[in-house]
Amino acid sequence: MSETEGREGARARRRERGGGAEARRAARRGGGATQRKFITRRIPLYEVLSEEGLALIEANAETILQEIGIEFRDDAEALALWKQAGADVDVVRVRFPKGLCRKLIESAPRSFTQHARNPARGVEIGGPHTVFAPVYGPPFVTDLDQGRRNATIEDFRNFVKLAYALPALHHSGGTVCEPVDIPVNKRHLDMVYSHIRYSDKPFMGSVTAAERAEDTVAMAKLVFGEKFVDDNTVLISLINANSPMTFDGTMLGALKVYARANQATIVTPFILAGAMSPVTPAGTLAQTLAEAMAGMAFAQLVRPGAPVVFGSFASSISMQSGAPTFGTPEPALVLYGAAALARRLGVPFRSGGSLCGSKVPDAQAAYESAQTLLPTVLGGVNFVLHAAGWLEGGLASSYEKLIMDADQLGMMQVMCEGVDLSENGQALDAIREVGPGSHFLGCAHTQANFETAFYRSAIADNNSFEQWQAEGGLDAYRRANGLWKKILADYEAPALDPAIDEALRDFMQRRKDSMPDAFA
Amino acid sequence: MSETEGREGARARRRERGGGAEARRAARRGGGATQRKFITRRIPLYEVLSEEGLALIEANAETILQEIGIEFRDDAEALALWKQAGADVDVVRVRFPKGLCRKLIESAPRSFTQHARNPARGVEIGGPHTVFAPVYGPPFVTDLDQGRRNATIEDFRNFVKLAYALPALHHSGGTVCEPVDIPVNKRHLDMVYSHIRYSDKPFMGSVTAAERAEDTVAMAKLVFGEKFVDDNTVLISLINANSPMTFDGTMLGALKVYARANQATIVTPFILAGAMSPVTPAGTLAQTLAEAMAGMAFAQLVRPGAPVVFGSFASSISMQSGAPTFGTPEPALVLYGAAALARRLGVPFRSGGSLCGSKVPDAQAAYESAQTLLPTVLGGVNFVLHAAGWLEGGLASSYEKLIMDADQLGMMQVMCEGVDLSENGQALDAIREVGPGSHFLGCAHTQANFETAFYRSAIADNNSFEQWQAEGGLDAYRRANGLWKKILADYEAPALDPAIDEALRDFMQRRKDSMPDAFA
Repeated sequence: MSETEGREGARARRRERGGGAEARRAARRGGGATQRKFITRRIPLYEVLSEEGLALIEANAETILQEIGIEFRDDAEALALWKQAGADVDVVRVRFPKGLCRKLIESAPRSFTQHARNPARGVEIGGPHTVFAPVYGPPFVTDLDQGRRNATIEDFRNFVKLAYALPALHHSGGTVCEPVDIPVNKRHLDMVYSHIRYSDKPFMGSVTAAERAEDTVAMAKLVFGEKFVDDNTVLISLINANSPMTFDGTMLGALKVYARANQATIVTPFILAGAMSPVTPAGTLAQTLAEAMAGMAFAQLVRPGAPVVFGSFASSISMQSGAPTFGTPEPALVLYGAAALARRLGVPFRSGGSLCGSKVPDAQAAYESAQTLLPTVLGGVNFVLHAAGWLEGGLASSYEKLIMDADQLGMMQVMCEGVDLSENGQALDAIREVGPGSHFLGCAHTQANFETAFYRSAIADNNSFEQWQAEGGLDAYRRANGLWKKILADYEAPALDPAIDEALRDFMQRRKDSMPDAFA
Repeated sequence: MSETEGREGARARRRERGGGAEARRAARRGGGATQRKFITRRIPLYEVLSEEGLALIEANAETILQEIGIEFRDDAEALALWKQAGADVDVVRVRFPKGLCRKLIESAPRSFTQHARNPARGVEIGGPHTVFAPVYGPPFVTDLDQGRRNATIEDFRNFVKLAYALPALHHSGGTVCEPVDIPVNKRHLDMVYSHIRYSDKPFMGSVTAAERAEDTVAMAKLVFGEKFVDDNTVLISLINANSPMTFDGTMLGALKVYARANQATIVTPFILAGAMSPVTPAGTLAQTLAEAMAGMAFAQLVRPGAPVVFGSFASSISMQSGAPTFGTPEPALVLYGAAALARRLGVPFRSGGSLCGSKVPDAQAAYESAQTLLPTVLGGVNFVLHAAGWLEGGLASSYEKLIMDADQLGMMQVMCEGVDLSENGQALDAIREVGPGSHFLGCAHTQANFETAFYRSAIADNNSFEQWQAEGGLDAYRRANGLWKKILADYEAPALDPAIDEALRDFMQRRKDSMPDAFA
């Protein structure tokens, strides 16, 4: 892929993207209503490590896999599969002959399509593509009006609706917040149903128990059909390693369900460096690679060819308090390195997002988020969980920050288009027309490009101080508060076949009736 | 420069930087008291344009210089110099034979040292180096307590003192705010004096009139000695082009004074694309290059070998209101492109900073600043004006944002060190020691690297929600307010030879007495 293009190239590209000027206009409109296609990066990747450095880290990962090994706990089947594959199994510790994991991973696709129930909203995960999905996992939600509180299923639905309405989000995500008002053994049904009912973007599956993963697959089959699901990826699910060097039975159980169903799993060492890995980026990278390789290889043992994504969640901690820290330089270095390691392995990569430790969507939240998001995009992350709405180290989903972050995602999408070197982009005629000492505001070229020039932020205030003050002197937090309420008020659900809806509701009811409520 | 290094390389590098572990500890401490050396980048550059794209833009810049030309207004001497050099002069319009400007610029240094009165604080401008200087030019200051107001000389001194005390700022800057309580024809004396008296970092000269530039040079000679100033760079000054394609008499007058005195000038097309240049990045790049080349070549006509810096200030505007916008994708693309063009020309480059349009240091301010600063660093900018404290499109210097931005600058410095691939950095022994399912908090490697691991932010709050709430639930704006007051309270002026101080005061008094006050 070249970032430079001749004049013909630019025209061809615009045609190929379809929609021409209209699509470009939509892409430039920050708060615009037109859904954006996942990103296809037309700018180069940023790399921090050379070939030599990457090879050193790969060698260290192989040493970890061979010498120290990875524990597969509470899963006899996993141990049997590894033994059969030629690994050395010692109680729950699995040690891998050199190159075994890498060899197994060769059967995984380099890139795959995750289908959405709206065919136009399918996403390509891998290669030069980047897909943005919202925050995942917080037990709390927060907004300016009510502050921080336990998340409910109503909040969950709201975040699904907002992610559906925000054009810069390509994906509906998974546990956009944890609806703690619903029994823990039943809430996955409501979550999956909400993604299907209130959005038509692709979504993620439940991983908190093997049977909940089974429920997710069953519901996906009601929507897409049994055969389609077996042949195609319609679910992507997050399988975290218990770093260091451990997979537990819960995660292995869910991984097996999804891999057997030919659905995608993101194998992610979850690492706060200094606690779950060494304090150094190079050490964290080697351990991350070893863990991710073992998990992805295991998915290939379960079903060769099942889509897997190399995941890395790696942040730093405060060496004083042990608290996780975000937006610092070390996680950015790890991200760039891990992205390059994933490319060398030939699998899609998940990392980054709009991470921060702040308790409110203030300057700290924004600095830290931007310092995570820009490396995410320049490093070439393919699937970006937590791309919008993450606050407080992932403990809270923020309504306002979802809006703010989505605006940044829109900017990243425009940045990834790179510099237009077409004749119109070069604008020599405009410079000739205007000449020294004049201005370009009214010239023909400016008029012709009026609608497509420059990203338009939905949330930034660029008015004069006086006008800003006259309008109430609101900061970005307060402006975002008005915006998410407006989007929710304007929300219209995408159509869903009533027969499918009824089948889903029937399924949920039967499953809920089959077991008593559990809350722990 | 390679970003990867063997074990010996890492050790040698640490030795070479001096101070070893202590220097590293200081570098990692966000709010630490130890001044940092300017950045020497050990990570690769990020490029958005290929060789082919850059060559196209260079050809367009030559077309602009040849066909359209640049106006040199109100300066007969400039026109005479250009005529003598072989340019075509038509009234005030100068058209340049192909390659003339590029040829003239060859006499400028690729990199140069700007000396400070404290020899340890000299900075290298060019090559793999990055120097951070504070905000320049705002007529207003703002803080949480008093809000936005006219800047005074007391504010000016405060910003000089803060920039002196903040270890991530390598430079004292210039007009850190405009002290409008002092007559316009005399305030340059107080500004230059404040930089010398209250800091020992390098600083910038006055450019608002040729005679004020002369005063600046005279004061520098009182500090450094006449011969030293003629042989070395002790001043760097900002010469803006009146884009499009115009230099005015004021800027040319100041440029000539500094170039003749062998002092550095930053020739900067000041561009809000859509108003002062075409709305497209490629058009803006060609025009910026043409203007900067004409200005830098002119400095070489005045004194061959005088240090010049290719400057680019390019942002976008709102196509609805005409207001400047910051932190959007288009200026970042221009920045990466212009940095590459400066490298091809063989001169140092100035651009970027922590720019934003927000009226308060909120999330908008931080997102926009980070989205400017990270491209600044990855693009390889050598001299970064507005690196800290800029607010409201450059209309206000913010006490709190100065503190917040400086914290980000410290992070950029650590990021530029890249990934440590030494044996200690690889940390294989730590992974062996800890093993699966345990944690790294107490292991020998963590203990040994405790002080140097991870950047420590002076301003981020990473405590639990409960603790944060118990401490008042302050956002970053409020925490920064406490921090700048503490730094000012703890401020101690660096020593200054009393004889030099007296000579400076005498000079100022004589100059002030020589003319009536002017306020316009």
